[in-house]
Amino acid sequence: MKPEPKSSSASRARAEIRAGRHATHTSGLADDHVQGNLVILPQSLANDFLRFCQRNPKPCPVLAVSEPGDPMLPTLGHDIDIRSDVPRYRVWRHGELVDELTDIGALWRDDLVSFVIGCSFSFEQALLDAGVPLRHVAQNRNVAMYRTNIPTVAAGPFHGPMVVSMRPLKAADAIRAVQVTSRFPSVHGAPVHLGDPAQIGIADIARPDYGDAVDVMPDELPVFWACGVTPQAAITQARPEFCITHAPGAMLITDLLNTHIASL
Amino acid sequence: MKPEPKSSSASRARAEIRAGRHATHTSGLADDHVQGNLVILPQSLANDFLRFCQRNPKPCPVLAVSEPGDPMLPTLGHDIDIRSDVPRYRVWRHGELVDELTDIGALWRDDLVSFVIGCSFSFEQALLDAGVPLRHVAQNRNVAMYRTNIPTVAAGPFHGPMVVSMRPLKAADAIRAVQVTSRFPSVHGAPVHLGDPAQIGIADIARPDYGDAVDVMPDELPVFWACGVTPQAAITQARPEFCITHAPGAMLITDLLNTHIASL
Repeated sequence: MKPEPKSSSASRARAEIRAGRHATHTSGLADDHVQGNLVILPQSLANDFLRFCQRNPKPCPVLAVSEPGDPMLPTLGHDIDIRSDVPRYRVWRHGELVDELTDIGALWRDDLVSFVIGCSFSFEQALLDAGVPLRHVAQNRNVAMYRTNIPTVAAGPFHGPMVVSMRPLKAADAIRAVQVTSRFPSVHGAPVHLGDPAQIGIADIARPDYGDAVDVMPDELPVFWACGVTPQAAITQARPEFCITHAPGAMLITDLLNTHIASL
Repeated sequence: MKPEPKSSSASRARAEIRAGRHATHTSGLADDHVQGNLVILPQSLANDFLRFCQRNPKPCPVLAVSEPGDPMLPTLGHDIDIRSDVPRYRVWRHGELVDELTDIGALWRDDLVSFVIGCSFSFEQALLDAGVPLRHVAQNRNVAMYRTNIPTVAAGPFHGPMVVSMRPLKAADAIRAVQVTSRFPSVHGAPVHLGDPAQIGIADIARPDYGDAVDVMPDELPVFWACGVTPQAAITQARPEFCITHAPGAMLITDLLNTHIASL
């Protein structure tokens, strides 16, 4: 995994985000580049959270962990400052969502550790290149995400349901999508479910828990991938005194190229 | 692709078949070994049929073509005599099924060419090894096969619908099955459809056109693979004056190992 030059579409997108001119979801943005989910925790919980990710690699594939107190993420790209380079942050206290911000500089502490977790947006360009249409991209919406009844494996205080993203696909495209996304294990890989949403505890496909609803046509199957919003469900269970995450869909754009993280 | 020693389970199974002691389907038999569908045509139609296979590689992946008039298939194994080594044959005249036999020695002609086409039985052991359960194998039934509304690409007189085999699977197993069978392009590879049978023209999943019906449970999806019985549908359209095929499910067992034909 080698970063691109700093003049890339990724660094340009991050400059817009840092300047506060892009404060929404990043689906389709700088689309050659790996995007990441964000979890920032006090160092006292970092070890438990890293074990949670290790035990739940489908929803929580770790792309990078920062040094305590250091807001920079040099292994993910040039001049990435995690305090300003994500479009929209969520601030959590004792497991409650208390604020949404576009910059967290004022909240930074010397004991904070940043975790960047792979995001399914990173395989979307590969799906489009393979001829698999993605409705939320075509409609410039955020992807639909749902809490499921699939349990994660607990670590310390972290536990809770797996969150999934959903893309509606015709059967032949769903089969192709399994093939394409299997090549990207570090950004959730193959789907975890397809077909009947009720089998994984989703009562109403038209009402996602995060992101935007998209229509599922009669000749389509909903296809579900493990999602890096899963830690946010675990945070509501673990109730850490302080935590910052990205807002679902508003990701960190890295300098890594999607093609470089493909397994084959 | 290198044959195994002649003492293998494949040659033992062929000896039983040649002796007339096994005259039914071969699912689960000598299960490490590549199995094949059979089409035998007069040389005058062989070129058209080979082009039909080339144009329809998902249902018709060619494993071997014999020399005209020669009943032996040395590239597929030791001492394979196509006149006796398939459990059950179908004899066709002018596109009509006129007989089923366990030996075709009395019908052999100097102008006959044998085509052996890959069979999905060859990836079933890989599915079982991956923990994907197969109901028809567990119940020792033939696999269920259906004519679809998916057209083949015509060549000479050969045309008609694609035939598919169906295995009912839970969603997670269906996803795993796409991954596993994608490694076996020479024996049909990944599924062509999953979910709603009506989308590919199957009116009643409980009434297969070939093979045995198997139950599809409420928490399962029917998963469909292109099938080497497709030429038999094309033969009823092409109406060759003379043709011999295997009976659906009663395959030629070769000395090739399934693991040797995996693409990855």
